[in-house]
Amino acid sequence: MDKTTKEELIERAKIPAKKALKMHPFYSGKLQVMPKCRIESHEDFGIWYSPGVAAPSKEIAKNRERVYTYTSKWNYVAVVSDGSRVLGLGDIGPEASLPVMEGKALLYKYLGGVDAFPLSIGPKDCCSAKQIIDFVKLIQPTFGGINLEDIAKPKCFEVLDTLRRDPEVDIPVWHDDQQGTATVTLAGLTNALKIVGKKKGEIKMVFNGVGAANYAIARLLREDGFNLKKSVFIDSKGILYKDRSDLENSNNYKHDIAKMSNPEGLEGELEDALLGADVLVSLSIPVPDLIKKEWISKMTDDAIVFA
Amino acid sequence: MDKTTKEELIERAKIPAKKALKMHPFYSGKLQVMPKCRIESHEDFGIWYSPGVAAPSKEIAKNRERVYTYTSKWNYVAVVSDGSRVLGLGDIGPEASLPVMEGKALLYKYLGGVDAFPLSIGPKDCCSAKQIIDFVKLIQPTFGGINLEDIAKPKCFEVLDTLRRDPEVDIPVWHDDQQGTATVTLAGLTNALKIVGKKKGEIKMVFNGVGAANYAIARLLREDGFNLKKSVFIDSKGILYKDRSDLENSNNYKHDIAKMSNPEGLEGELEDALLGADVLVSLSIPVPDLIKKEWISKMTDDAIVFA
Repeated sequence: MDKTTKEELIERAKIPAKKALKMHPFYSGKLQVMPKCRIESHEDFGIWYSPGVAAPSKEIAKNRERVYTYTSKWNYVAVVSDGSRVLGLGDIGPEASLPVMEGKALLYKYLGGVDAFPLSIGPKDCCSAKQIIDFVKLIQPTFGGINLEDIAKPKCFEVLDTLRRDPEVDIPVWHDDQQGTATVTLAGLTNALKIVGKKKGEIKMVFNGVGAANYAIARLLREDGFNLKKSVFIDSKGILYKDRSDLENSNNYKHDIAKMSNPEGLEGELEDALLGADVLVSLSIPVPDLIKKEWISKMTDDAIVFA
Repeated sequence: MDKTTKEELIERAKIPAKKALKMHPFYSGKLQVMPKCRIESHEDFGIWYSPGVAAPSKEIAKNRERVYTYTSKWNYVAVVSDGSRVLGLGDIGPEASLPVMEGKALLYKYLGGVDAFPLSIGPKDCCSAKQIIDFVKLIQPTFGGINLEDIAKPKCFEVLDTLRRDPEVDIPVWHDDQQGTATVTLAGLTNALKIVGKKKGEIKMVFNGVGAANYAIARLLREDGFNLKKSVFIDSKGILYKDRSDLENSNNYKHDIAKMSNPEGLEGELEDALLGADVLVSLSIPVPDLIKKEWISKMTDDAIVFA
């Protein structure tokens, strides 16, 4: 018996934002760069800096792979963003993306022990895919891995795909909003299907929202044997079908999705798509009452909803 | 009564390098990225990351200057190097420069409380002045200041001068090997002259080595009223004078120095230059017995030697 009213829920949802506005200035940000080594006496500076530091530097100059032994590179991840597609906020620019990137780095350290550093690059609206790609290649010597974050589509596809194919890039490159979300969804869906006893090749899936996340999810699910021919994708203009007139030229990757899904050419809205669906993955901009209770009831028994 | 032999001194000088080779792999580098804020409960993630973090991000999107209030930018310094001129080791590349850059960041935090992050960029031998300049402009949104470090001359002059003149760069940019060394030398010299009771406009100075450091020192001392017309500069080929045949075309900044110093056209070596000099600033590659005791005795009374 939940007696909480809708108004109370909305009030409660505002608390983190209020606290965030007070706490961020209190700490002046949330990250710091700390020594992790012993410094007990004046002599220790001679080990960590000049003259002692020349010895590990010379070892690395002889064999570049030793950078993983003598420096923090093995555990460094760069969180790189141009601030062009931040959370649900959109293109707010690199400076405004910094609290989010610092937050991501904080999660890396607190939950995973990884030393992640935020690098929001700019100025706003100036970073082409090529500039982001070149930037990642420049910082490669310092980092053990690259986490691309909150970069607008379709730029983010070009950046990720180019860097992963580039033979000059020998550290892992990962776009959180594509591969991160996709991996978590695949894992969740695999487990959920076990529980309800349905098979991945047979289910009908509905994807609400056709951003970088759902595109990456679709590609990963297909790799894993899910049947996209039984799936329907929906963007703000409704269900995607291969002859939809706005898709052909302007938006390559949506056209791709239209061709790989919905072979019956179903048209309409989310409500129409959900009829007889087994799975809903909703990754559009969050709005209250976006998905109605009565629509969910049109799905099959044991329906799975990720929203 | 110092009974230490030369051999004992040389053995003792090797200790930091030996320790550095053991200690760097023990800690796997020397820096880490840490939260500086309170994280006590699950709810705190909602303040530092989603959904609460959207509030400071929106504030910064409205007014970019608030990035100094809501993030760590106010205290972030990037230590940027391409590894082209590291310590006395030369062009060892970005990976091999990392232990030094991490060491510099460690000093920043340990001695100054500043969160400095090393960014060694590459690959080796690929960073033009323009690439370093563009790189600094890209990372400007994240950092409160830029520390250029261990970049070869004359590239380092172009990088520093261009960035400091660029109206699009609104954070301080500093090249440690130029301005850092120059500032310390000016401070030390000013104090030393007070003690010996000599005047900056009247003394004869000798600069041994004509790298980025001594060039920057010369420029700063001249700004402060020291008389370079009474000074002599020496590189590996001997004293600089304005008609020295190798200077005219190949090396602009050395020609500059030759023109602003040594008006009598003195030729010869360090030994010749030191006759009657009040100050020696030696910033060449360190070699044992580079400066002989008997040469120093040719300087004036109360001579000042920085070496």
